[in-house]
Amino acid sequence: MHNFQCDYTEGAHQKIIDALVKTNMEQTCGYGLDEYCDKARAKIQKACGAPHADVHFLVGGTQTNTTVISSVLRPHQGAVCAVQGHIAVHETGAIEATGHKVLGLPCENGKITAEQVKNCFAAHYASETAEHEVQPGMVYISYPTECGTLYTKDELSAIHAVCKEYDVPLFVDGARLGYGLADPNCDMTLPEFAANCDIFYIGGTKCGALFGEAVVIMNEKYGRDFRYLIKRHGGMFAKGRLLGIQFDTLFTDGLYFEITRGAVESALRIRKAFEARGIEFFGRSMTNQQFPILTDAQIEFLSKNSLPEFWCDAESGKKVVRFCTSWATTSESVDTLVNDIANMPV
Amino acid sequence: MHNFQCDYTEGAHQKIIDALVKTNMEQTCGYGLDEYCDKARAKIQKACGAPHADVHFLVGGTQTNTTVISSVLRPHQGAVCAVQGHIAVHETGAIEATGHKVLGLPCENGKITAEQVKNCFAAHYASETAEHEVQPGMVYISYPTECGTLYTKDELSAIHAVCKEYDVPLFVDGARLGYGLADPNCDMTLPEFAANCDIFYIGGTKCGALFGEAVVIMNEKYGRDFRYLIKRHGGMFAKGRLLGIQFDTLFTDGLYFEITRGAVESALRIRKAFEARGIEFFGRSMTNQQFPILTDAQIEFLSKNSLPEFWCDAESGKKVVRFCTSWATTSESVDTLVNDIANMPV
Amino acid sequence: MHNFQCDYTEGAHQKIIDALVKTNMEQTCGYGLDEYCDKARAKIQKACGAPHADVHFLVGGTQTNTTVISSVLRPHQGAVCAVQGHIAVHETGAIEATGHKVLGLPCENGKITAEQVKNCFAAHYASETAEHEVQPGMVYISYPTECGTLYTKDELSAIHAVCKEYDVPLFVDGARLGYGLADPNCDMTLPEFAANCDIFYIGGTKCGALFGEAVVIMNEKYGRDFRYLIKRHGGMFAKGRLLGIQFDTLFTDGLYFEITRGAVESALRIRKAFEARGIEFFGRSMTNQQFPILTDAQIEFLSKNSLPEFWCDAESGKKVVRFCTSWATTSESVDTLVNDIANMPV
Amino acid sequence: MHNFQCDYTEGAHQKIIDALVKTNMEQTCGYGLDEYCDKARAKIQKACGAPHADVHFLVGGTQTNTTVISSVLRPHQGAVCAVQGHIAVHETGAIEATGHKVLGLPCENGKITAEQVKNCFAAHYASETAEHEVQPGMVYISYPTECGTLYTKDELSAIHAVCKEYDVPLFVDGARLGYGLADPNCDMTLPEFAANCDIFYIGGTKCGALFGEAVVIMNEKYGRDFRYLIKRHGGMFAKGRLLGIQFDTLFTDGLYFEITRGAVESALRIRKAFEARGIEFFGRSMTNQQFPILTDAQIEFLSKNSLPEFWCDAESGKKVVRFCTSWATTSESVDTLVNDIANMPV
Repeated sequence: MHNFQCDYTEGAHQKIIDALVKTNMEQTCGYGLDEYCDKARAKIQKACGAPHADVHFLVGGTQTNTTVISSVLRPHQGAVCAVQGHIAVHETGAIEATGHKVLGLPCENGKITAEQVKNCFAAHYASETAEHEVQPGMVYISYPTECGTLYTKDELSAIHAVCKEYDVPLFVDGARLGYGLADPNCDMTLPEFAANCDIFYIGGTKCGALFGEAVVIMNEKYGRDFRYLIKRHGGMFAKGRLLGIQFDTLFTDGLYFEITRGAVESALRIRKAFEARGIEFFGRSMTNQQFPILTDAQIEFLSKNSLPEFWCDAESGKKVVRFCTSWATTSESVDTLVNDIANMPV
Repeated sequence: MHNFQCDYTEGAHQKIIDALVKTNMEQTCGYGLDEYCDKARAKIQKACGAPHADVHFLVGGTQTNTTVISSVLRPHQGAVCAVQGHIAVHETGAIEATGHKVLGLPCENGKITAEQVKNCFAAHYASETAEHEVQPGMVYISYPTECGTLYTKDELSAIHAVCKEYDVPLFVDGARLGYGLADPNCDMTLPEFAANCDIFYIGGTKCGALFGEAVVIMNEKYGRDFRYLIKRHGGMFAKGRLLGIQFDTLFTDGLYFEITRGAVESALRIRKAFEARGIEFFGRSMTNQQFPILTDAQIEFLSKNSLPEFWCDAESGKKVVRFCTSWATTSESVDTLVNDIANMPV
Repeated sequence: MHNFQCDYTEGAHQKIIDALVKTNMEQTCGYGLDEYCDKARAKIQKACGAPHADVHFLVGGTQTNTTVISSVLRPHQGAVCAVQGHIAVHETGAIEATGHKVLGLPCENGKITAEQVKNCFAAHYASETAEHEVQPGMVYISYPTECGTLYTKDELSAIHAVCKEYDVPLFVDGARLGYGLADPNCDMTLPEFAANCDIFYIGGTKCGALFGEAVVIMNEKYGRDFRYLIKRHGGMFAKGRLLGIQFDTLFTDGLYFEITRGAVESALRIRKAFEARGIEFFGRSMTNQQFPILTDAQIEFLSKNSLPEFWCDAESGKKVVRFCTSWATTSESVDTLVNDIANMPV
Repeated sequence: MHNFQCDYTEGAHQKIIDALVKTNMEQTCGYGLDEYCDKARAKIQKACGAPHADVHFLVGGTQTNTTVISSVLRPHQGAVCAVQGHIAVHETGAIEATGHKVLGLPCENGKITAEQVKNCFAAHYASETAEHEVQPGMVYISYPTECGTLYTKDELSAIHAVCKEYDVPLFVDGARLGYGLADPNCDMTLPEFAANCDIFYIGGTKCGALFGEAVVIMNEKYGRDFRYLIKRHGGMFAKGRLLGIQFDTLFTDGLYFEITRGAVESALRIRKAFEARGIEFFGRSMTNQQFPILTDAQIEFLSKNSLPEFWCDAESGKKVVRFCTSWATTSESVDTLVNDIANMPV
């Protein structure tokens, strides 16, 4: 059985395993102050074209979102994001747990626009009763979004411009950042992307690491005392070097991009196979997640060999399912699935 | 150079590394619902003599303390603990971040007594202005304590009896639980210990795992919806099976106890060497942490080969330092240190 | 100029002023433990037909909502309410400040239905990833709603039945409760209303008092340690007797109902005047708030003598404004307004 | 029976009652934006010699402390204060409810010193593990303290100097400020006091108002968006003009100081009567609170006519009680008490 349910069904890329095994008996200090973390930080700064960026390593995404968001907001402020944003619906209120409201904007394909963001801020400050409402204090978006879509460089920089106008940070959740940058339609390099964010994170958990997310603080205004905040949120990892070793490996010889490019190629082979059968898709993802809209019979047929994840009901009565690829997806798995797609019932 | 600064300077015990390597390409579901977690849970239940206990795996100690404590307290309640307790001083206010005060009791050797706890509750409820003060809502202790001391079975069960009297849970931080149980003066088995707690956790990070803590909820009153709370605190680990694999390994063939017994034997060899030189100790630890009180010259002498951690200034003008052993401490390291102790200046 | 902008533009009903003046030099203990509070509690219990209800007095609405809601939810739970509910949009995130998400349901005329509530709970518990989402832990509605509409007895008891089914409390914000009960279409007495709530509050600030809200806890499950929670939220009023004196006065000889009935009669005279001119209304309020949809010219004309509050833009290009009456609205003011309505431009 | 238990056993000074009665039927806008609040703000600015200070009115002390403290701290910071400070022990964890630890310093007579404060900050920043501990982010003191003692001008400005050095605000709780300024040993005027604070509040509740506290933000760095924070904490009073009217009255023709001077004179007559009998005192209060140390027989004797409040047990086996005076204390009451003191048993 080939499992396409998500991009974290296996452990880690072999090079990461090798690095962990090789360094296992070395002695280092804890809490991310070791030399492996230093090396990883330097490589990430270089990859982002941002030698002065502040880089921190955390274990998981919800923890990262919570720590970053609560570090930049004042108590009466909220985070503007798509109503379907991860922090809005899939983190059991972790943001509210820090005292902050998530201010949802309607979205299409998971994306919000600079115009929406501008209107949100403008409307707030124009209101005579503004102080009776939560003040928008930052913008949170995901790249790629929950449903695999991308902001173009122009869209991203337009949102960033609104943020600058209102003097609030733009924070980009990059849990699957590598897959976004590997999308054939992506029109940004990592440094171009980074330059359009105040803070973002480079996801490791879903991109080949055992676990780990690298927070990159581009705008020095927002980094003060960040390590206190990591600790306060339970994110100060005792054996911090495990994160350093993994990100050092991912950013050596372009492994991070090699991993995500490979996964996207696999995903697009699958997409093409569906397209060849005239299948329609939910959203327009060209990343490692593909959301075909299938009949129950088709799902049953494919599930004999390949396991997708149920996503949601489609209006047509069909079902949206997700096929997700990763560093661990073998060409054999893709071949099997592609072959089954070719033979599935209409 | 032999580093004795703490018990998490290396990676993980070889058997754990082997297990992670061996299972790396297996596909499992996420978030701790996989079969490795199930197996680990079953083994822990058995080791605790508690077939109905609820077992959950988290990544680190602060996260675990925060999640457990905020899960059992109502908003106006606080956690009673030693003023030097880890949650009181070394977690950057992670407990207060969840809205709860830490109610510190004076302690000797890191321990508080049943009598103190009883007086704290009794005084609160006797106060005419009780509702103007934080209500004690639970008791938190560490086993072993921050300075390596142990509660006896009688002491622990006396505290537990007070908790039952006031209908509040006793939560025991077992970040180094294994080392406590391996103390030659320990008068409890793991099942006996467990039976005297409402909730406790079995530390993995400091006892041979790469990372991970296993929360054991003995009293079913306190476990409701615990997975929601884990998620809300950013502790729901995506590749949860990594925790399952590690604890499965630790609780197979008694590895957990083998590891901690070995470390304590090393520590006691070091202790004996100091005693032979007439050195006094801070506290009375018989666990893997030893706190000799040394002169600057002695510290300098030993530090040529072996690195201790500075703990605090002693009243005498000397310094308290900590020598910490672990699964990774080699007999060669201990030999070197013991030999140096024998030859250090008076 | 007659000000119809809201129902708290003046001080308090003369009988309340008289009572405060009369008792000014009496000495009582503080914090709501005095005999005036006791008397007020007894009268409210009687008026609600609930001799065992727990009654507490707080100063204002946001404080009351925050204290009640955070007293009944566990950390991972949220409050289900209309997306336009007061706690959702007009309290600067006071609920989120206590760590809880407000779970908004779409509403018509400010009301949500038992079916919506049931679906919300059912969908949550049916979800495979429920623990990644905020658990609905209570239901919050307003009676009357923000736009002056009422739940019928059947609607209210249907929502209450769903709450019982899921074992969560129904909390009703009664900031303007008296005006709701005075609506000619209201089909409930206060005891009937109370019997369909777990917790509600009787608004004083907007119904003739200088300030003050009386929380009535009908279901004993939810009242434990409520005074601690009041204090913790800064709501323990030092001279608590001021609240007792006011509510004692309001619930003597039916003053509370006399006040709100009078205000509703004034409001319905205004409504009739608008209807006579063919004016349409936003919502269907028969309480002390009327929301006619007017042209700019009409608003300008009426504003020469009578000040309404701008509410929102209507789809037609016209504007929704609010005319609000209270205990302090004189028949002279109403006469003037009614006369102006008769003469305003088409 | 004459009640000396506290300074809020009656309603309000007659002039305040008169002002409330006189303005009762006036119509104003809500939430503190009316002209009475404007007038009161101007008078307070003038009385403080601070024409640019930001002045806000809140209802009670705990609410004020919570709102101010949470407005100036970042999440990982705590408030340094005396271990017996009001926020540390008598507010049911209201500060912790906003996520912040109270960092208690040992105190004598309720006071902390500049040296202690400096050591606290210096020790924190010198620590290698600073980020594992709560960062001191402000200093909170009371003037007068809980036990009626005062900081001298030099002591206050020395603490303020340390605060400036570490770039944190000094917040002074002035719940009984007027009584402090009326202490015959007070060496500061209100403007001199104000100039040594970043933020303070002028207590109304205990100094002649029905209720109300006026926050004065001297340092413009700390006032941003304060009204949002008031609302978020449930402190935005609907009929805000009630606060404006009261403080306008208190700061007209020096009423505030007349009230507190009178109360202190009464208190000192009582003190003298005790001193004449050789009675010792707890602390050294020369304000409106007197803490004689009495035998049970003496307390019983005095309690026939005059009610004190039990404060705490004295080491000698005697009891510390509190006699508290206010604007409402009549000379007849004082005469009775003084006479009884003269005749009480040895």
